[in-house]
Amino acid sequence: MPDFSIGVDLGGTNLRIGAVTPDGRLLEKISVSTKISLGADHVVNEMCDAIQRLSSQYKKSGKLLGAGIGIPGMVDLETGTVATSANLPGWSEYPVRQEIERRLRARIILENDANVHALGEKWLGAARDVDNMAMLTLGTGIGGCIILDGKIFHGLTGMAGEFGHVTIEPEGVPCGCGNRGCAERYASASAVMRMAQEMIASGEAPELAKAAASDPEFSAKSVYNLAVQGDPGARKIYHRFGRALGILMADIVNVLNLEMYVIGGGVASAWDAFAPTMFQEMRERSPIYLATDPENVRNKSANPTHKPRLTIVTRAILGSDAGLYGGARLTAL
Amino acid sequence: MPDFSIGVDLGGTNLRIGAVTPDGRLLEKISVSTKISLGADHVVNEMCDAIQRLSSQYKKSGKLLGAGIGIPGMVDLETGTVATSANLPGWSEYPVRQEIERRLRARIILENDANVHALGEKWLGAARDVDNMAMLTLGTGIGGCIILDGKIFHGLTGMAGEFGHVTIEPEGVPCGCGNRGCAERYASASAVMRMAQEMIASGEAPELAKAAASDPEFSAKSVYNLAVQGDPGARKIYHRFGRALGILMADIVNVLNLEMYVIGGGVASAWDAFAPTMFQEMRERSPIYLATDPENVRNKSANPTHKPRLTIVTRAILGSDAGLYGGARLTAL
Repeated sequence: MPDFSIGVDLGGTNLRIGAVTPDGRLLEKISVSTKISLGADHVVNEMCDAIQRLSSQYKKSGKLLGAGIGIPGMVDLETGTVATSANLPGWSEYPVRQEIERRLRARIILENDANVHALGEKWLGAARDVDNMAMLTLGTGIGGCIILDGKIFHGLTGMAGEFGHVTIEPEGVPCGCGNRGCAERYASASAVMRMAQEMIASGEAPELAKAAASDPEFSAKSVYNLAVQGDPGARKIYHRFGRALGILMADIVNVLNLEMYVIGGGVASAWDAFAPTMFQEMRERSPIYLATDPENVRNKSANPTHKPRLTIVTRAILGSDAGLYGGARLTAL
Repeated sequence: MPDFSIGVDLGGTNLRIGAVTPDGRLLEKISVSTKISLGADHVVNEMCDAIQRLSSQYKKSGKLLGAGIGIPGMVDLETGTVATSANLPGWSEYPVRQEIERRLRARIILENDANVHALGEKWLGAARDVDNMAMLTLGTGIGGCIILDGKIFHGLTGMAGEFGHVTIEPEGVPCGCGNRGCAERYASASAVMRMAQEMIASGEAPELAKAAASDPEFSAKSVYNLAVQGDPGARKIYHRFGRALGILMADIVNVLNLEMYVIGGGVASAWDAFAPTMFQEMRERSPIYLATDPENVRNKSANPTHKPRLTIVTRAILGSDAGLYGGARLTAL
């Protein structure tokens, strides 16, 4: 059996762990529930136990090359600690990397989870053929990552790619970050729920009201299902979502002019409902996108042998496994 | 005498040319008026004559290392032609680099003028001590450039750093690019003039109306002078300017998280009138800036020996010479 690395995706309720070979085969993955509220010591214990359990069966014949761990927060890459995270209260004083290295006797790398997902998509997913890309992860908020020359671009303090707090509406909805009108107030799962609740309260969305009242698990996904069925209220929400995401994407394209933008995260599954509006906004708002839009350029191309430079905007393809692949990949870079 | 390079800044009415040594001494600079409307052939002729005139006196003792030319438009770096430029109609078919190389028998590099200015500031100006920075050139519009690891970051089609067309007001003032509410519709010389004309027309700015009627050269600079004297109308214009620029800067910081942002161009001289509002918006709208704001961090720093990571936003210092230094520097990279 071959050598392998471990990729770890630390989520709010689940800890997902995979063993991945250097050429990108996922040997096995496991998922264990964990209670982040019980603190760093508890979670690190669970994590080390699970990594040891998974790797013990591959260790006999292959070497553990290390583990890369995606953390839902800001990571201090030098010290291997969690700098700040709304999701991980009390972790900032805990020597996460050092403690895991001590227990597992392997090379451990911590990284922000959005960055790890992007690295997975770059290695084996939608962006495997490009070296310069950005990824937007649409979940409760918007996670972001920029990859340049195949490597994560961290910026001065590891915060590059903070796309969710780009201003879309200068006097818009207040955001927890202190700003108003941030992109993630309009194009995320929590934004879909906010818009649905506002429309239900104002009486303009009877179908949404009915669904919310009858379904205890009413969610952004429920709103998407109604949009697909043609409900005007649900469609309006995803139209607003697509408009905001299109403005954000146009801004990002105007600043970065990359080869590819990958959109992932749970809410990316509502692609059909928001993507047409998003692309329309991008064409109207980014001269760079308009000049490199595959739809536009392919139709216009006078010389079919000349390969035009295109800006590709596409969905992520690895789903939640991106975090496992990306985490494992960290140990090879 | 030492070897030298030539830096050329091709503007709308003037062609500025400097001879610069490899260690950054400006030996001499000249400025010749040129009529861009007479076409590429005419301008390239003028340019070659002037470069030869200037370099002939230094050629006796030093070697001409090459010339870097800043062009007000999109440059195709591979072919050495002007890809698109609103300012240079009819140039796109002309082999600019090839023609100048043939006449001067020296290495010629074409580059977008905003990029050349930024490279000058990086080499010898405000950003000489940092490797990762962006520059905004506030003129008729907003020029932009991103420098990473000391080199110009071009992006897929050479358009990275197109900050002027980032959306500030989604339903705002229409822009020539096809978008609405672009940053350069609110934070440029032409934006100042538009706002002044609107306020004069509405009757809410009597002092501006008086100045515009009496001064045939009424400009963004005149509005600045009135703002400094305390005129409410003029102050309001630069407040709006600072707000839009602050939103743009917050967006750029959230995306790029660089060490330094340099603001240059003619309108940067109105710094006192717009900068306070700009910084206020940046603190409110960028969590990254707030966490690395020199004012904020220095006051809060508990440990004076720990060097905090700061985001510096500052004025350009080389003025119009930045284009000469940057052009010369192109030949050394």
